[in-house]
Amino acid sequence: MEFLLSTPTAHKLYDTVKDLPIVDYHCHLSPKEIWEDRPFDNIGAIWLGGDHYKWRLMRTAGISETYITGTASWHDKFCRYAEVLELAAGHPLYHWSHMELLQFFGIDTPIGKDTAEEIWEAANRVIAEENLSPRKLIARSKVECICTTDDIVDDLGYHKLLREDATFDTAVLPSFRTDNLLLIRRDDYADYIARLSDAAKIAVTDLTSLKEAVAKRLAFFVEMGCRVTDIGVPFFPNRLADEQEAADTFQKALHGEPITNDAYKGFLGHMYVFLGKLYCQYDLVMQWHLAVMRNCNTVLFRQIGPDCGVDCVGDSIVGGNLTFMLDALLQNDALPATILYTLNPTGTEQMASIAAAFPRVCCGAAWWFCDHKRGIEQQLAVIAENSALGVFPGMLTDSRSFLSYARHDYFRRILCDLVGRWVAGGEFDEAAALKLVKRLSYDNAKQLVSKK
Amino acid sequence: MEFLLSTPTAHKLYDTVKDLPIVDYHCHLSPKEIWEDRPFDNIGAIWLGGDHYKWRLMRTAGISETYITGTASWHDKFCRYAEVLELAAGHPLYHWSHMELLQFFGIDTPIGKDTAEEIWEAANRVIAEENLSPRKLIARSKVECICTTDDIVDDLGYHKLLREDATFDTAVLPSFRTDNLLLIRRDDYADYIARLSDAAKIAVTDLTSLKEAVAKRLAFFVEMGCRVTDIGVPFFPNRLADEQEAADTFQKALHGEPITNDAYKGFLGHMYVFLGKLYCQYDLVMQWHLAVMRNCNTVLFRQIGPDCGVDCVGDSIVGGNLTFMLDALLQNDALPATILYTLNPTGTEQMASIAAAFPRVCCGAAWWFCDHKRGIEQQLAVIAENSALGVFPGMLTDSRSFLSYARHDYFRRILCDLVGRWVAGGEFDEAAALKLVKRLSYDNAKQLVSKK
Amino acid sequence: MEFLLSTPTAHKLYDTVKDLPIVDYHCHLSPKEIWEDRPFDNIGAIWLGGDHYKWRLMRTAGISETYITGTASWHDKFCRYAEVLELAAGHPLYHWSHMELLQFFGIDTPIGKDTAEEIWEAANRVIAEENLSPRKLIARSKVECICTTDDIVDDLGYHKLLREDATFDTAVLPSFRTDNLLLIRRDDYADYIARLSDAAKIAVTDLTSLKEAVAKRLAFFVEMGCRVTDIGVPFFPNRLADEQEAADTFQKALHGEPITNDAYKGFLGHMYVFLGKLYCQYDLVMQWHLAVMRNCNTVLFRQIGPDCGVDCVGDSIVGGNLTFMLDALLQNDALPATILYTLNPTGTEQMASIAAAFPRVCCGAAWWFCDHKRGIEQQLAVIAENSALGVFPGMLTDSRSFLSYARHDYFRRILCDLVGRWVAGGEFDEAAALKLVKRLSYDNAKQLVSKK
Repeated sequence: MEFLLSTPTAHKLYDTVKDLPIVDYHCHLSPKEIWEDRPFDNIGAIWLGGDHYKWRLMRTAGISETYITGTASWHDKFCRYAEVLELAAGHPLYHWSHMELLQFFGIDTPIGKDTAEEIWEAANRVIAEENLSPRKLIARSKVECICTTDDIVDDLGYHKLLREDATFDTAVLPSFRTDNLLLIRRDDYADYIARLSDAAKIAVTDLTSLKEAVAKRLAFFVEMGCRVTDIGVPFFPNRLADEQEAADTFQKALHGEPITNDAYKGFLGHMYVFLGKLYCQYDLVMQWHLAVMRNCNTVLFRQIGPDCGVDCVGDSIVGGNLTFMLDALLQNDALPATILYTLNPTGTEQMASIAAAFPRVCCGAAWWFCDHKRGIEQQLAVIAENSALGVFPGMLTDSRSFLSYARHDYFRRILCDLVGRWVAGGEFDEAAALKLVKRLSYDNAKQLVSKK
Repeated sequence: MEFLLSTPTAHKLYDTVKDLPIVDYHCHLSPKEIWEDRPFDNIGAIWLGGDHYKWRLMRTAGISETYITGTASWHDKFCRYAEVLELAAGHPLYHWSHMELLQFFGIDTPIGKDTAEEIWEAANRVIAEENLSPRKLIARSKVECICTTDDIVDDLGYHKLLREDATFDTAVLPSFRTDNLLLIRRDDYADYIARLSDAAKIAVTDLTSLKEAVAKRLAFFVEMGCRVTDIGVPFFPNRLADEQEAADTFQKALHGEPITNDAYKGFLGHMYVFLGKLYCQYDLVMQWHLAVMRNCNTVLFRQIGPDCGVDCVGDSIVGGNLTFMLDALLQNDALPATILYTLNPTGTEQMASIAAAFPRVCCGAAWWFCDHKRGIEQQLAVIAENSALGVFPGMLTDSRSFLSYARHDYFRRILCDLVGRWVAGGEFDEAAALKLVKRLSYDNAKQLVSKK
Repeated sequence: MEFLLSTPTAHKLYDTVKDLPIVDYHCHLSPKEIWEDRPFDNIGAIWLGGDHYKWRLMRTAGISETYITGTASWHDKFCRYAEVLELAAGHPLYHWSHMELLQFFGIDTPIGKDTAEEIWEAANRVIAEENLSPRKLIARSKVECICTTDDIVDDLGYHKLLREDATFDTAVLPSFRTDNLLLIRRDDYADYIARLSDAAKIAVTDLTSLKEAVAKRLAFFVEMGCRVTDIGVPFFPNRLADEQEAADTFQKALHGEPITNDAYKGFLGHMYVFLGKLYCQYDLVMQWHLAVMRNCNTVLFRQIGPDCGVDCVGDSIVGGNLTFMLDALLQNDALPATILYTLNPTGTEQMASIAAAFPRVCCGAAWWFCDHKRGIEQQLAVIAENSALGVFPGMLTDSRSFLSYARHDYFRRILCDLVGRWVAGGEFDEAAALKLVKRLSYDNAKQLVSKK
């Protein structure tokens, strides 16, 4: 049986989508790295240089930190990772690592303790011979469009350089990520606002000037091709502060004064409406990432910093709050096309049912810890049952690695296998299925990033 | 492969239940429409006249409201719905629509943009030629018994006419639905109580007369064949008010005074015990519908009204509260045979485990947004694992449409496929399986609606 | 098809693990019964004498209490249970009962009303002929090690006798269960502390002497072979009381004074850190059993007592609280190797993600109501996706019955079937799979109970 394709119909569907281009509408790739296009050093550095998902797996398997974020050589780190994969049946990293080896290095050896040396040699030979670099991987993966994730104070300098580079066809679009704007209880919030003032060339001293600065930044992002916005929702609002209350709360934030939960929620509600209206104006897509807990292991966080592999699935958002906020946005003409993601898969059915009650709101691809074979299939099924599967925007990598484009192939196989089983079982029409898998593999994402 | 039947054993099981009569112990059919028995106009009006589940799907797919609840013709609405089904792989409406076309109209064409006209013509020809009407569909589906859903102030006039009509064999029994009785914080609660006074011919002025009126209404419902009661639990009680507190709260409700959450919960607890005792007295079945949020999209609710397709999955009931209430009923000799439904599927395992700790309490069929292939199978599995599957009361339509009887066939196929796989895999005995599927397709529901 | 093995690869994997010894690292077997080794009376007494899981199933199926915990004969109780199994498709007791009959009695007749007499005779004949007793079943099941569950005040007299019995090879190790130590709001808490004083030969009058007594008991348990500790977490702490506050709360507990929720949580947090440090000192494994509600049906609880079959799935632990406590333990050098169990399966994904953020914390086997075919498979999949499956500690019975060793075979089949499907589908390497199933069937549990 070919990997993940269990019926002849699945094969047939997959054959029609496997070579389609990729539109990666949400990821964490570095535009600087794309611009610089420096060839890679070795497979160890590529795989283990910054991928905290792999670090986490290695720790779970009992590997010493020396071989994870410590001082061991790339070779030794790679060998430890290879060993761990023997224990990682059913883990998406097992699938992804093998798919990446095959797709980019032509290696189809099972990864493990006994094969680690051989794979290390073979992969590094390919890297050296082909002078593998970010742009080569992007081209080879037929990536048409990349939406990076960028703080709203970012100068987008590398985006600009990439737009002007006639030798590079892939669109690299910034996304407008507002987390830091809304984390008003952080100690360094005033510093952040100072950076915003600089970036926008507007002295932000109150709510009015804050909004002006944000609007100016967004206009610049849009000028640079931005189609998508993003936020990791930190605290879910169930009320809207009015202009005066929001202004007062912002003053407190600027002066580092304590802000109650209630005031925080009201401020968030107020700002979500403000941002939603702006997004509607430019017809942008709004993304909400829900139900995550970050930096849960204080010891490792202090030792290594954020994004070190100790984030966890958060508690599901209270449905009544999510409904409140979407409803408030709609009533205020501030609900743009919206994609919802939840890290807690138990909330998916409810989230999908809530999405279906509002115009142009949908569920996104299975996120992070949910992004594995069973999770993707579950996500597709829940969306199919509660929404119209055909409008699902499709896959994204959410990744920091240029090898992660293999995940689009992973998704396409799982999608074609699921729909293929439906067709084979008389549950869906084959002609409609052929159109459907194409929409979900390419068309819908393409439309999402296209100017209206 | 025949639709949804994946093994020879599944076929064998299905052959023994496919022609059994239907006992639909919970639905929202109109007794007036059954009595009047007016022939249908066209397939568009049948499918899209009042089915907010289809409206919801069409909105999700981006169809304009004109073609949903707006002024477009039935023909045009039907064509849009047909188009949307091409996007609706995995949605239960895709399955149901095709099953209804085949079962009632003999049409087995895949529904889509290109076939819409042809199906429109063919279906309407059948409607005209056969003069299709509610009673014809009921007879053709071999429906023995229908339990409608009726407010306790209803005069049950059409139920009476149907009972007296010797030409009509199907029992149409009222269900005693107490939602409005308990929604004491609504603005128009006093008006509702006035209607109750009229219906019961008892001036309801205090808790004592309220209880007299309710008891009198129930006696009348029972006289008219009522076997089943129902409530959509609005707010889950975790305490019982005593007689005096409940009487005080009721006075506040009658006079439109504000009622605290705590007082509301106490009143609900008190009334649940009161109602439970009454139900025990007549050996009625009590149904609780849990975890729903209604009318979540205010813009559409204001434009179209309730039941317009913007209801959502609610947060799961707190297990401790559900346990408290069942335990309180049991301790007060007020726990009748009870069926629990949850709209939030994540609560099913817990609900099933709670049901199993109390006598004659069980989980009902997969409800509403859970009523699809995977949801039904999941519900059956959870009940099987936590309870004795053989006492599950079986399928119901919960529907407003006379075509929905196809869902009983859907359920029987899924049931036989699941049990068939168990038998084929050596996990259950075939002889026991044959009895089991018959119980769940007919016997248990028949017993549920039969007088003891 | 052989029971639960759906591919040739599954067979192959299963063949390598089916005869491995058993290490049952968590159960509720009675060391007294093992020591006394009295032959069984009859299959009715074995199955229905104390198994509240079977009682619960019988009640759900509507059997009168007379035949459950009442005065009916073992023969009649057995026959009623046999009848109920015909309704129990998909229930783990259906599988277990058939596996036990086959494995220990050589009987492969489907259990039901018509076969009850025949099975009753045949099973009792085997019991009489082979003089079946606890130690015979243990030997036949190749049980190398049993970890019983013991209150910290227990004198471990039977453990001592069993250690000294040269004729008995199986290690029977005590586990240190601290529930009663921490249930400080119980009416009889002072009595319990008096028993602790006696057992430790230390007059417990304050927090300092309490800790001394606990430490002394643990040292004794360790001397008697204890490798594992346990607690059913009653109330989840989200804060740590300091020494003074904890001492004050303990005084209140000793004097039966009321203790607020907040004080209770603080005390628990304080004691978890104290216990965690002790466990680290001896390198013990800490088990937390989460999300259970006990004795939910007051009527039956009063009639029959605890452990009568009316426990339920509790609400999922709040993720933030679980994270807080693990993080606090780690920061205080008090986090031993830890196994988490949840009775609410909706919390499994979150729990697995939290476990993966802390060193040596993992999820345990599917617990109690989750311990069935679909639940085990689901648990394995979630662990595989969020952790390294290869470090999962493996199966345990959690049982009071000597026949329950059949559940290890049940687990091994389900494990081999799941991993076998992965191998057959090209999703995992066969050589790695052969090592993996051995680890999860034996090696990891063996290592867990072995002294470091």
